[in-house]
Amino acid sequence: VKLYDYGASANCLKVRILLRLLGTTYERVPVDIFAGESQTPEHLSRNPAGRTPVLELDSGEAIPESNAILIHLARGTPFLPDDPIAQSRVLGWLFFEQNLVEPNVGTARFWRLTGRDAGREQIVARFVEAGSAALDVLERHLDGRGWLVGDSASVADVGLYAYVHAAPDAGFGLAERPGVSAWLTRVEVLAGFVNDLEPYPTGARVGAGGQSVHDGQSKAG
Amino acid sequence: VKLYDYGASANCLKVRILLRLLGTTYERVPVDIFAGESQTPEHLSRNPAGRTPVLELDSGEAIPESNAILIHLARGTPFLPDDPIAQSRVLGWLFFEQNLVEPNVGTARFWRLTGRDAGREQIVARFVEAGSAALDVLERHLDGRGWLVGDSASVADVGLYAYVHAAPDAGFGLAERPGVSAWLTRVEVLAGFVNDLEPYPTGARVGAGGQSVHDGQSKAG
Repeated sequence: VKLYDYGASANCLKVRILLRLLGTTYERVPVDIFAGESQTPEHLSRNPAGRTPVLELDSGEAIPESNAILIHLARGTPFLPDDPIAQSRVLGWLFFEQNLVEPNVGTARFWRLTGRDAGREQIVARFVEAGSAALDVLERHLDGRGWLVGDSASVADVGLYAYVHAAPDAGFGLAERPGVSAWLTRVEVLAGFVNDLEPYPTGARVGAGGQSVHDGQSKAG
Repeated sequence: VKLYDYGASANCLKVRILLRLLGTTYERVPVDIFAGESQTPEHLSRNPAGRTPVLELDSGEAIPESNAILIHLARGTPFLPDDPIAQSRVLGWLFFEQNLVEPNVGTARFWRLTGRDAGREQIVARFVEAGSAALDVLERHLDGRGWLVGDSASVADVGLYAYVHAAPDAGFGLAERPGVSAWLTRVEVLAGFVNDLEPYPTGARVGAGGQSVHDGQSKAG
């Protein structure tokens, strides 16, 4: 398979982590978001939302949205339970991630690391409030549990790991959330786990002269 | 099955629409969010995020998150394709919905209809920008297509319908998006379709004396 990918995106990181956990070889195709490469006709034909990551199958068919890619890759593997109820709960956590974790923790991180937070205090305050509430939900759920769903790691854990482990970059504390912290470590010692999240490049900073980038184009998907 | 439900939530509406399209009888259990009923220990045991909707199976097991509920109910029905690639694309649209449509179009609507937008112009401006961009993605994709995935209605269409049809409540225009408008009508004429979205009650307004409610508790999930 081929992964259209951006190194500093935690949405892309989660797919790379799963590919390694599964031992799946893949071709990585970097998409330079800040040079406009996610908005070309070619990329929009892969993903109408113009975001990364996109998985391209050997047949040439494209699958966008990071968590849909996780599910696609995990079918028939131990990372997606066969039981329909367990599988629906895995999906539930992945929707929670895209609805409350990524838009708040992820965007707060992106803005802070690239200078997009300047002058937007009202929005940033909302990220802090809603992102903290989302992390508190995780803490409550993980207190006394090893994994988000059932007794072993699933794509729910891989999907949530991505932005949660990076929450301190946006000023969210993990030390006061011991359940979350212990769970992050459990993910990190899975066989094959590698975290290769890259820093945002200089060109990603506001005013660096690159193309203007919406949040939706930059680190979501 | 039992549906823990809030009448004015479009996340709940999408589940009610699917249940009727499938002809599934269900018991509706209203959760009075603005009286704190989504934050009780009982409800938090059903959904650690304290949101509606939650589906409770006859076995007593609970499934939270609206789009996970859609997938759970649709397995084995024409509303979820068997083909893994098509199924992953359905998921992709549902993740897009929770990541870009609900947080922007949905929250903008909730705030405007309940007076929560006052004094938060910076945040509202971002809802308008990001919500419009999300609707434009849908318009591009639906131009020349009947349905979001494949040749027939799926839970992707049901899931996206909920907040998109209500976008004008938040000031988003649909007249200038003819592909989206025609698709909404196609959803509305499906056999069994009923839209019973309720208005927000007086008690939902800011300052109405009810419990304070986060966005995450009120209309997401």
